[in-house]
Amino acid sequence: MKASVLVRPKAGILDPQGDAVEHSLRKLGFEVSGVRVGRVIDLEVEATDEATARAAIEKMCHELLANPLIESFDVRFEES
Amino acid sequence: MKASVLVRPKAGILDPQGDAVEHSLRKLGFEVSGVRVGRVIDLEVEATDEATARAAIEKMCHELLANPLIESFDVRFEES
Repeated sequence: MKASVLVRPKAGILDPQGDAVEHSLRKLGFEVSGVRVGRVIDLEVEATDEATARAAIEKMCHELLANPLIESFDVRFEES
Repeated sequence: MKASVLVRPKAGILDPQGDAVEHSLRKLGFEVSGVRVGRVIDLEVEATDEATARAAIEKMCHELLANPLIESFDVRFEES
C-alpha cells in the first residue's frame, strides 16, 4: 500500500530553513509569508488494509521518520 | 492563499536519502519498499484566485524551490 508521510516543524518551533527560503523568495520579488519547510517521505508498506498500514507508519514516524518533540506528521494514502 | 508544494526526486533519479531511510526502516523490522524522500514547502502567497497563485508558485519552483532537471513538484491548496 502506497503512502506519503508529511513531516513538518510544529507551530511555534523555529524553522531557519523556511525563513531562508522566504527571504530568498522575497528577494526574487515574490510576495510570500509563513514559509515552512518539511519533508515528504513516499513509501510502500506491506499491509492489507489502511488501518494496519497507518498504525505501522505511525510507529515508523515515532521511531525514525519524525522527531515528535518538534515535528508533526500527517499520513496520506494514494488513491489507486 | 495557503499552499503546500511537494518536491520529489523524479522517477529514475537516484535517491540516496530514501535508500538510507529504507535501509534503516528495514533494520527496525518494518516491511517497506520504494522509499523516496522529498521536501514539503508550506507557504502563503498573495493572490485573489487559485490560478494566479498556482502560476506564481510554479514560477517559484522553477526559480528556487525545485531543480526541474531532477525533481518534480506538485502544488496543493488547503481547503479553508
